[in-house]
Order: sequence, then structure tokens, then C-alpha cells
Amino acid sequence: MSKISYITDIAEWEEDFQFYYEIKVRFSETDMFGHLNNTVPFTYFEMARIEFFKYKGFMQEWVKPMNETIPVVADLQCDFLQQVFFDENLKVYVKAHSIGKSSVDIHYMGKKEDGSICFTGRGAMVQMSKKTGKGVPWSDEKRNLLQSNAKVNA
Amino acid sequence: MSKISYITDIAEWEEDFQFYYEIKVRFSETDMFGHLNNTVPFTYFEMARIEFFKYKGFMQEWVKPMNETIPVVADLQCDFLQQVFFDENLKVYVKAHSIGKSSVDIHYMGKKEDGSICFTGRGAMVQMSKKTGKGVPWSDEKRNLLQSNAKVNA
Amino acid sequence: MSKISYITDIAEWEEDFQFYYEIKVRFSETDMFGHLNNTVPFTYFEMARIEFFKYKGFMQEWVKPMNETIPVVADLQCDFLQQVFFDENLKVYVKAHSIGKSSVDIHYMGKKEDGSICFTGRGAMVQMSKKTGKGVPWSDEKRNLLQSNAKVNA
Amino acid sequence: MSKISYITDIAEWEEDFQFYYEIKVRFSETDMFGHLNNTVPFTYFEMARIEFFKYKGFMQEWVKPMNETIPVVADLQCDFLQQVFFDENLKVYVKAHSIGKSSVDIHYMGKKEDGSICFTGRGAMVQMSKKTGKGVPWSDEKRNLLQSNAKVNA
Repeated sequence: MSKISYITDIAEWEEDFQFYYEIKVRFSETDMFGHLNNTVPFTYFEMARIEFFKYKGFMQEWVKPMNETIPVVADLQCDFLQQVFFDENLKVYVKAHSIGKSSVDIHYMGKKEDGSICFTGRGAMVQMSKKTGKGVPWSDEKRNLLQSNAKVNA
Repeated sequence: MSKISYITDIAEWEEDFQFYYEIKVRFSETDMFGHLNNTVPFTYFEMARIEFFKYKGFMQEWVKPMNETIPVVADLQCDFLQQVFFDENLKVYVKAHSIGKSSVDIHYMGKKEDGSICFTGRGAMVQMSKKTGKGVPWSDEKRNLLQSNAKVNA
Repeated sequence: MSKISYITDIAEWEEDFQFYYEIKVRFSETDMFGHLNNTVPFTYFEMARIEFFKYKGFMQEWVKPMNETIPVVADLQCDFLQQVFFDENLKVYVKAHSIGKSSVDIHYMGKKEDGSICFTGRGAMVQMSKKTGKGVPWSDEKRNLLQSNAKVNA
Repeated sequence: MSKISYITDIAEWEEDFQFYYEIKVRFSETDMFGHLNNTVPFTYFEMARIEFFKYKGFMQEWVKPMNETIPVVADLQCDFLQQVFFDENLKVYVKAHSIGKSSVDIHYMGKKEDGSICFTGRGAMVQMSKKTGKGVPWSDEKRNLLQSNAKVNA
């Protein structure tokens, strides 16, 4: 696992996670190779990220139709370490790994019931203005909320 | 196939279709039973129905954010006649089977490359007001467009 | 709701359900109309049905690669009574409505947190032989398990 | 776009693509933010990759149930450069960027009808033995097929 570009020290990286969201693998998420289709963990990341932002108090604001900012996913990546099967119960961990001016780098870790890691991931998110399409800097309040378990970058 | 409640005479029913949309079965749409997952044909119906309404000239209006009416699916059903597999090319036929005041009963037929029917379906759609949430009667123009290959009910 | 063909007395029908599975609506399951996409409840039915069969002790057998029978969905239908939105918590109820020789008619009911019904559905399932592709009659044991909250038909 | 780690010279990178697969954005692939949901391009990558391997003559072998090797996705990533909307027609380009002993790094580029890039991506794939779960080196024939528009690494 030393090859994963966004993980320096896996033990330290793993320890840093606090928040997780539990997901049961659906039958319709398997494919004819008999395991979880590779495109599905990104759906899990989305769910877990949203729950993370709800936990931080952000999401409620972002989904209001009249809200001026919107969270935009800039990129996403996933490393598949183990096959995952129908009916498995996974914990999908989320953390704000590093915070930029108007962006945040979110990291993800999927764990099986035996505690082994089945996939890892990351992706940058930008708080964007609906009008201008440009990044909107985090308020101090949001930055503080994100910072609680994140390293500050800016 | 005599058991399908919405089909009286299968030969006549089959002949009535004119419009179809071509779909290739995706790998991610299969499941661990090795065939197309049962929930996917409803996605095909949606795609084919939208192309049908585009062909009729309706859809363009409905997806405008400021449009006052919206097409609402009241119900959907599908009968699975044959297994479908990865990479098959299907033709999904659509027709307006019967037209109500503000609704239309859409019928669907999925065919394999050998011409055999793999699934059939139907579902009612209502033209609804975004404000009132109630059905908005078809204009004469829309009714005529739908009527061209549909039996009128009203 | 009197128009739903598979429901005679809605109060009685509703009361008959015992088993349910809880589902939270995912962001990726919404569409540009701002609500749950119409194709998604069929995925919920699948999940809830599988949990129902696990609860009855069937599913474990059916997903074994060497098992000789497989559950085949013959048809599926859904009536959409209310819009459903992102992040709602639904209870998807499942019951064996009637039992045939090798088939069972499964009924579904989706409820919002306020207890109101948002969708109903049904679909026949057949226990099929992988070799012959024909229906395999239920064993007495399975019939009894299904019967516990189902009306017998055969 | 200089920030995308797997692209050195974007013009050169873009020019290197030859194969593409056309995809129309489905209604069910949008989300309540009104655009293509971020998890969907990975499904497009899968489809385009499979068509690419079919074009190379590989896929037919891999989906045979008795085949001893299976293509395994090691990782996937996507950079989102522009929003994508319902009903857009995209070209999803695929190339074998670099070839390892038993692996290949696949690159992806999504283009809108106006020729602008809407997303880019990459992911490593390994030809794996079903029995041992270990990488199986490419045959000379396969290596040559991949090499035709790929830089060799090994």
C-alpha cells in the first residue's frame, strides 16, 4: 500500500479518521464478476462525505435551493485493496485531510467487518459561488469546524 | 405471455409500436447472477420515454427550469420474459397506448437482436402543475401529437 | 388509492405488513427534478426483499454459487403516491401476499417518517432451476416459512 | 489543468487518444444539483474501457466464465473540468498510457460536442489469475496489441 500517492504513513493516516458512515452492500451493486462493481465506492464516498458535512453542520445549508454557494467536487480517486461482496457491512471513514482557501481535500477509508481496509480514496472539494462559478473562501466558522480534525494548509 | 394484464392481443400490441431507442447493456448493469439486474429496465424505460417525448417535441419544454408543468410518473411496471446479458444490443420500443385528460399510458417493449421480446412494460404519466401539484389537461396540440400513434380515451 | 389494482382494502393491506427494512435516500439517487428518481424504488424493493428472505432463512441458500435453484423476478410494479426527497428515512415493508406452487407474490409499501405511504408495489418471484429454467415447487418447510404471514393460494 | 498529476503536456496527451466511445447522458444520471452526478463518469470509463478492450480483442476472453484470468481495476481517478448536463452527447476517449508486466495504465478523456474536455481520468488495471489472485504477465500478443497506441514501460 506504499504506492498510494496520498498516503505517507498508513498507520498514522488510518488513526486520523474519526467519523464513519455504515453501508451495506446491495445486490444491485454487484456485477457479473460476483463482487462489488468498481464504480460503486464513489457512491459510498458521496454518501459518507455528505453525512460528514451534515455532522459538521454544512450540508443543510448547501442543499437549500436559494443558497449562494454549492460544494463542487474537483476530483475523486479510489484505490481498490480488496474485493468486496454482496451483503458485507462496511464502515466508510471520512476526514478533512487538508484545508485550502475555498477548498478541502477529503480522504476516505473503507473497512470490512474484520477491520481490514478494502478501499481508500480522496478528492478535492471547492465551495463555489453559483453566480460566478468561482471559489468562495471558507468563513472562519467553517474553517474551524473543518479544522477540528484536519491539518490547516492555507 | 397471456398473463400480462395490459396486453390483450400480443401480435396486435407488438405491431402498434413505431418508435424505439437503442441501448447497449453495460457491465455495471449486470449483477452477481450474471445477467442484467432487474431494476435496470426501468432506467431503460425512462431513457426511451424521454427520447419518445423529444421525438414528439414535448421533452424540451419540460426540462426548462421555468416551465410550469412537469411530467410525473404515476406508476411503472415491467414483465421480465427472458434474461438479458452484458453487451446485448436492445431496442426499447415506446408508444402512447391511451390518452386521458392530463395523463397518458405509456407502453414499452424490449427486443433482443434476434427480434425476441425480453421485457414488456407500462406506466401512466401525468402532466402536472408545479404550483398546484394537480394534473394539467393536454393542449389540443399535444393531444394531437400523442394521438398520432395512440388510441384516444377521453 | 383505490385505483391500485393489487390492493383491495388499503387499511387491511397496510396492517398485514410486519417486516420492514430502513433506507436513507442517497444524493446520487435524486435527479434534476429535485426528488428521488422513479427508477430507484425498485432498487429499494430488491434490498428489502432480500432482507425479507434472509429473515425467512432463504437468501443464504440462493446466493451460494453451487445452489441448484435461483430466485427469479417475473414482474415488478410500483405506484408512486408522493414525492420522496434527498436524505429522507424510509421504511420499506415487505410481505408474501400469496403463495403459488413455485412462486410467491411479494408486496411492498414505502413509508415516510411521518407514517404516510410514499409508494406501494408488488412483484411475482419464481424459484427456478438453474439447469432446466423451470419453476421448482416450494418445499413444505419453505412454504411454511412463507406462510407465516401470507395467504396460501395453491 | 496543469494540476492534474497524470498529465504532463495536455496538448500532447490529448493528441495521443485514438479510440472513443459515444455516450448520451441519461436523466437518471443527473442529481438534484441539476447536472451529471459525480459518480457517473466512472461508469462511463468502465463502458469505454470495455469497448476499448473489445476493440483490442481482449474483452471477449475475459468475460468467458471458464477463463483463467480476469481484469482487475487497481485504482481509478477522475478530474472534473466542466459541468455536464442531461442529454449531452459525450465522446469518452481511452488509451493505454503505459504498460507494465501484467498491468496497464489506462487514461480517459471526456469531450463535449463542442470539443471541450469535461473530465479526464486514469486507472491501473491488472490481468489477474482467478486461482492465485496474482498478476499474470501479458503475452507478447496482448502486449503488442496494447502497444500499438501505448508507450511500453517494462
